[in-house]
Amino acid sequence: MSKKIVIIGGVAAGPKAAARARRVDPNAEITIVERDSYVSYAGCGMPYYLSGEVSEFKKLFETTYGVIRDHDFFKKEKGCDLYTRTEAKSIDREKKEVVLENLDTGEQFTLPYDKLIIATGASPVMPQIEGTNFKGVHILNNPGDVQAIKQSLEEVDGEEAVVIGGGSVGLEVVDALSKNYMFTTMVTRSRILGGMLDIDMAERMQKKLEDADVEMKTGQKVLRIEGDDEGKISRVVTEQEELDCDIAVIAVGKEPNTALAVEAGLEIGETGAVAVNEYLQTSDPDIYALGDCSETTHIMTGEKIYFPTASVANRQGRAAGTNAAGGSEAFKGVLGTELMYTMEYNVGSTGLSEEKALQQGYSVGTATINTHDRPHFYPVHGMVVMKYIYDQNTGRLLGAQAFGDGDAAKRISLLAAAITFGATVEQMAELDLGYAPPYSNPLDVAQHTANICRNKMSGVARTMTVQQLKEKMDAGEDFVILDVRLEEQYNMRHLKDSRVKLIDLSTLQERINEIPTGKEIVVVCALGTRSYEAYRMLVGAGFENITFLETGLQGWPYEL
Amino acid sequence: MSKKIVIIGGVAAGPKAAARARRVDPNAEITIVERDSYVSYAGCGMPYYLSGEVSEFKKLFETTYGVIRDHDFFKKEKGCDLYTRTEAKSIDREKKEVVLENLDTGEQFTLPYDKLIIATGASPVMPQIEGTNFKGVHILNNPGDVQAIKQSLEEVDGEEAVVIGGGSVGLEVVDALSKNYMFTTMVTRSRILGGMLDIDMAERMQKKLEDADVEMKTGQKVLRIEGDDEGKISRVVTEQEELDCDIAVIAVGKEPNTALAVEAGLEIGETGAVAVNEYLQTSDPDIYALGDCSETTHIMTGEKIYFPTASVANRQGRAAGTNAAGGSEAFKGVLGTELMYTMEYNVGSTGLSEEKALQQGYSVGTATINTHDRPHFYPVHGMVVMKYIYDQNTGRLLGAQAFGDGDAAKRISLLAAAITFGATVEQMAELDLGYAPPYSNPLDVAQHTANICRNKMSGVARTMTVQQLKEKMDAGEDFVILDVRLEEQYNMRHLKDSRVKLIDLSTLQERINEIPTGKEIVVVCALGTRSYEAYRMLVGAGFENITFLETGLQGWPYEL
Repeated sequence: MSKKIVIIGGVAAGPKAAARARRVDPNAEITIVERDSYVSYAGCGMPYYLSGEVSEFKKLFETTYGVIRDHDFFKKEKGCDLYTRTEAKSIDREKKEVVLENLDTGEQFTLPYDKLIIATGASPVMPQIEGTNFKGVHILNNPGDVQAIKQSLEEVDGEEAVVIGGGSVGLEVVDALSKNYMFTTMVTRSRILGGMLDIDMAERMQKKLEDADVEMKTGQKVLRIEGDDEGKISRVVTEQEELDCDIAVIAVGKEPNTALAVEAGLEIGETGAVAVNEYLQTSDPDIYALGDCSETTHIMTGEKIYFPTASVANRQGRAAGTNAAGGSEAFKGVLGTELMYTMEYNVGSTGLSEEKALQQGYSVGTATINTHDRPHFYPVHGMVVMKYIYDQNTGRLLGAQAFGDGDAAKRISLLAAAITFGATVEQMAELDLGYAPPYSNPLDVAQHTANICRNKMSGVARTMTVQQLKEKMDAGEDFVILDVRLEEQYNMRHLKDSRVKLIDLSTLQERINEIPTGKEIVVVCALGTRSYEAYRMLVGAGFENITFLETGLQGWPYEL
Repeated sequence: MSKKIVIIGGVAAGPKAAARARRVDPNAEITIVERDSYVSYAGCGMPYYLSGEVSEFKKLFETTYGVIRDHDFFKKEKGCDLYTRTEAKSIDREKKEVVLENLDTGEQFTLPYDKLIIATGASPVMPQIEGTNFKGVHILNNPGDVQAIKQSLEEVDGEEAVVIGGGSVGLEVVDALSKNYMFTTMVTRSRILGGMLDIDMAERMQKKLEDADVEMKTGQKVLRIEGDDEGKISRVVTEQEELDCDIAVIAVGKEPNTALAVEAGLEIGETGAVAVNEYLQTSDPDIYALGDCSETTHIMTGEKIYFPTASVANRQGRAAGTNAAGGSEAFKGVLGTELMYTMEYNVGSTGLSEEKALQQGYSVGTATINTHDRPHFYPVHGMVVMKYIYDQNTGRLLGAQAFGDGDAAKRISLLAAAITFGATVEQMAELDLGYAPPYSNPLDVAQHTANICRNKMSGVARTMTVQQLKEKMDAGEDFVILDVRLEEQYNMRHLKDSRVKLIDLSTLQERINEIPTGKEIVVVCALGTRSYEAYRMLVGAGFENITFLETGLQGWPYEL
């Protein structure tokens, strides 16, 4: 008799597991059950439909060859039965049956299984505040939500929007709303991208968003949403201020849909998501869980984490599909790599943050650079700010974070590979990555950053971060800020501080006597390249209490 | 007394070594000597200046902050002396002196050194044929050459160009000439990109160039170039035909400039380039060689190879600069990664080719796919054809090749890292690379390809390449080609062969009886996705003598 595989959840992880199980065992009876009417859609594409970049809603549901993934598709092309608008109410683990309910008719029925796969996904966290029911207040979780926001945008009279929450989805929504000509304000309780970037990187990224005319209200707790007599939203009220708006989108996080697993008595992990082993088996070995409803393991720390992303769901889908069909494939965990796009900026991170690496007890070193992703002469190029977190004892790379209008995403994926394979900063610098002007500099940003780490480890470079310099300035310390840029560059923008002394690098050798010998010196330039040169020149001339500014003034996130 | 470092060669490797030596030892006396009048320029940028994408010649000579890298720059910012139009004639290794000649005045003088760095670069190989002196016949090696081609293009009456040589530089020139509205013919003695792509990939890439209206004359030996009475080129004559043209560019390879090293009695390697150890020392430990004049080691085979590229020169520059200044930095070798851009296509390769891997004795497996680099719904996306070469015994990745209008370059750099760190196809598939629609599919092309390798290794997938299918068809074998695409797709383009049978995947289950059971079956579709699905369905139904077509009909390089 052929094996019965039942899959609860039809968005990403479920259909992937079904497709894989079908290929591994062409004779299995495979059934997918989905509560919603939409199945197998590109959830991560929703912000791009909202922005207008994806022109047609149906494209999110199509195969590459233009076929809609519906009942017919699953039946005929994948050989799977599909129930939509059908909710799994409970699991009888003794009888190995799932109890299902047709949400339109209320009719209940059961499906027997040999292997059950739970892929029930996640739901948006709803903040416990008043006013979330006003018209114009939205979440973005499923295709219905994005249609509703689209409609709100069409009907809306004004042009002011508020996004509540400073994570990836919030920032993608900011981008999408801006492309709909809305003036957008982001309100977030602490800083932006807390799970993705260290505070120094987040502050820089926030500055870019402000420069792009996004109103940023960080560190503000939302108290309530207020509406008008017609039941439409009129403002978002925080502890500090009232933000008038015509539409609001709440994106404060996701939580795993575990009700079915809880009801069935399956183990829930400390993260609050369904616990699984590396074969994605729950505490019942005939029941698998994967995707946004389950937890996973961070491969560097060994800790259980909740990391709901589509690419993980896809990789897990293959493993769970293989295993349910009788094969054996481990899913060892994740590195926590995240990528996102907002307001012309590519943002990403992988591995451990500086904060996390310190918690783990590493002797943490960091290096941050701000440079072109391609040769400056090549017409298509952008900037990338890139930060490495490494172990000062071994030189091993622990994490990387990057953003920029240049191709930061490419470098983060590369670093994800290098970190997974245990690369040191030296090995990173030595990689033969290939080169042509349309793709990178002869020495890629990723290798340039690795060389800065090497310079710091060997003592050739001693640097100061923008945060450290700002603190020193604010503390009123007596020291010299030596700006070595061209006078034209200086005149355009510089630190407005009496401790700043301008000596163009090209005249530094002649004018070296003008630099006071008894004082601490911080050399600054635009990007950190010329200041490094000047720093080495001054070290050679005997200056000892001296550093240069990493990332240069272009990486300065404060007022200039 | 401060250390004297003399560097012969001022294009890429030399200045990089100088800058690094300066930073490591701020008190060294550093001198750069260059035969040409141009120094420290972006040689790889020349094709983009030729194409018009780089608008100003001087941009190739500027720093990111707009300063020309001339004598003044090297003196004031790098603290290095620079002699241009000065040739190193000989080295007195006993006295540790270099004999130099000012090429304008003929005056000779000597420079003492403690450490000497040879970075004399390479010269274009000139084919031994008549007619290379006609006006309109060019090479592309230095900035003077590119200016000369620019001028030829301005003066030229007609619009036909011939490029002799099918390597990267030749193809970059094809692209640049096309952007100058020239009808361009490429003539090459064997196939294109011989050092970079296996023949199956090269054939596919050649098809793309033909589709882009580049006349491709492969396997043609050039006999001579003929000119008119005014001494201008009129045609390129090959063994097969006469190609009328108004301009020709010869790009048949580079050879190392070793005259100085030979004269000094330094060891020359089997590759014909200067031999060095991993500290880039020549057979004289006080003399280093690097960049295009020297050979290096392939890190996978341990063999010495000649691999002249700017990124290698850069990385070697750091090592040689460090070592000459008294530090210690190894340069362990290269993986042979190459990237290039031509006619809207990104092309790259890394590690071992299939051919090379077979020579090395590996039990070679390959997998090739043809797929989108980003979700098909996302407005910016392209196709990538990607081939992996792996060891069937261990699953270890040995090499990767890719091209496409999608971002093939990004994947090749990623693979270069993975291969360097010894990744297996399984580890490649498991990487947590991050995902958002602007960057990749949830499962990146690079991981998708790795999964195909896994499927082939485990026996879940048995495939046929386009070359194998073509041979089978040409041999008149009796078998069934089962096309499972939509009828609309079939009608647009299909294999014109009586053995083709069309059964849309969605009707395959109902029509399974129409498939003859005694014959070999090859399932085909557009990309290899639906045919894989159909293949598994038929395997499940008991068909045994069956395969599906890798890369699908979109990867078919022959006539349809």
